[in-house]
Amino acid sequence: MKCRKCGHEAVINMRQHKLALCGEHFLEWVPEQTQRFIEKYGMFTPDERILVAVSGGKDSLSLWDVLLRLGYKADGMYIGLGIDGGVDYSSQSHEMCEKFLANIKSQNCIPTWQPTLHVVDVAQLYGETIPDVAARTTRGRGKPCSVCGLVKRHVMNRVARDGGYGVLVTGHNLDDEVAVLLGNTLTWNAGYLLRQAPVLPADKPGLARKVKPFFRFYERETAAYALVRGIEYIYDECPFAEGSTSIAHKEILNQMEKDSPGVKLRFYLDFLRAREQGLFAQQAAHVELSACDKCGQPTSAPGLCAFCRLWEGKKTDGVGQASQV
Amino acid sequence: MKCRKCGHEAVINMRQHKLALCGEHFLEWVPEQTQRFIEKYGMFTPDERILVAVSGGKDSLSLWDVLLRLGYKADGMYIGLGIDGGVDYSSQSHEMCEKFLANIKSQNCIPTWQPTLHVVDVAQLYGETIPDVAARTTRGRGKPCSVCGLVKRHVMNRVARDGGYGVLVTGHNLDDEVAVLLGNTLTWNAGYLLRQAPVLPADKPGLARKVKPFFRFYERETAAYALVRGIEYIYDECPFAEGSTSIAHKEILNQMEKDSPGVKLRFYLDFLRAREQGLFAQQAAHVELSACDKCGQPTSAPGLCAFCRLWEGKKTDGVGQASQV
Repeated sequence: MKCRKCGHEAVINMRQHKLALCGEHFLEWVPEQTQRFIEKYGMFTPDERILVAVSGGKDSLSLWDVLLRLGYKADGMYIGLGIDGGVDYSSQSHEMCEKFLANIKSQNCIPTWQPTLHVVDVAQLYGETIPDVAARTTRGRGKPCSVCGLVKRHVMNRVARDGGYGVLVTGHNLDDEVAVLLGNTLTWNAGYLLRQAPVLPADKPGLARKVKPFFRFYERETAAYALVRGIEYIYDECPFAEGSTSIAHKEILNQMEKDSPGVKLRFYLDFLRAREQGLFAQQAAHVELSACDKCGQPTSAPGLCAFCRLWEGKKTDGVGQASQV
Repeated sequence: MKCRKCGHEAVINMRQHKLALCGEHFLEWVPEQTQRFIEKYGMFTPDERILVAVSGGKDSLSLWDVLLRLGYKADGMYIGLGIDGGVDYSSQSHEMCEKFLANIKSQNCIPTWQPTLHVVDVAQLYGETIPDVAARTTRGRGKPCSVCGLVKRHVMNRVARDGGYGVLVTGHNLDDEVAVLLGNTLTWNAGYLLRQAPVLPADKPGLARKVKPFFRFYERETAAYALVRGIEYIYDECPFAEGSTSIAHKEILNQMEKDSPGVKLRFYLDFLRAREQGLFAQQAAHVELSACDKCGQPTSAPGLCAFCRLWEGKKTDGVGQASQV
């Protein structure tokens, strides 16, 4: 397989685009496409300060890299969840983020922006690791994933707000998005279908705008980018992800993709088009949000938000505080 | 595995219901469930004359059998499509329908209704077989499936109308319905999603009500019913179905079902619930129908309907005629 641009040996063939590229041209193509998506979906402008949630994985580190290469004012945020899973998962992930930053800085090739990495350690700040919190609550039926999602959303939003970031950026790729879409479709959850989008506007006071600039890249493309670009990342999935529905859905979707290249991308883009045209509009329930009594973040519950209720009676030094980052 | 009702050896285990049954109790269970679906979805009443579209396959013959056992006034209709495919497909299918009828009559166990089988031979009536018509039109891009669907819909509707049948019944099972649903969902086709239902009311003059009493049975259940009940049926799929999208979708869905028993049924029932709650209502476009100038059936096109346009300039003895059945 030859690169379409220069005829050299290709490193990747993207069947859904009928496009094969060599390493050099792939490293050009990814930022070009990202820039196109940022503009097409109105994600952010070069003036805005951007907060990228980095996990130490290929998607978020590649995204941070691409945004810096494109000249955006992108800082990183790592949330230490205290997950070990026999592979020292959280420490390893943190290390990858620090390594990435050090590497970027040493290269001194980012002229416009000197990035920082905000680090929030959940156990240090709130007194317990995610697995410990999960073990004493009924949320998530024995799995920490639900608690983890709640905590991450809260912390990301707080750091974005306190740090004065206009926009919060995550590294979700197309495989992530389509797996969630399949799950929401299998249960026909109108509320979830309505809220799934590459740009979630900051339409409530205290909520940061959330965007996913990599949502049109397949997982293998973000992996290839990290590889070709020489970005070190943590290969392991979160140990708690094993056996999850979203992994099962990814396998199903990959099998469909194999038989019909592009089906994942079309499924998602057709969904966005239908959503835009109001397919689910009938079901849009208006939810009243008020400020949490403790931390001030928007919540649909009266009094305390779900995050603050999680830590009631526990060491709460960090809860409701201004960002320590 | 033991029968839940009597403890004898089970012939089928339905994981989605956590229900295993022996042959005797399975042959009781299928009509009981069918009756429940007929009532729950308001399909038809014992007073109505019912026309069952039979193909010679397990679903439609089992359905006809069950409806007669339940005491419904159910006649059959077979449409000869003129498909050979190296297995004499259409003749074999026809033979199975005639055998079924002869068998039912010889058993003399249907006290309330003496069923008839209407036979419409497309080539005889309209001058060409389905593969021949398909070969000279652009409809369906080389595959006769689209033409076949158009012709069958037209003929079924005509026979129902001319024969004074209040309702047209087809043997679609859950696997059929869910495969179509997956296809419509992958492309987010709002119009198709709105029109997919186990009961399509006769809301336009000249259109028969269409219902699918087997839509909650898995394919393996209708096959098991035919087998245990001793109904001979044609095993071959239509030779043109090979490689079709709906077969690919069925395979995908079966794989999901294996990992998560009941997912197919839940997907469809949740869809119906969401549809009922108006999930797609926003997109309901009103289509004006008028009567076709030639055959009188409702059409959205001005002048001739798609069916009559198909035969323009051909032998048209049968087109627009009253039923010859």
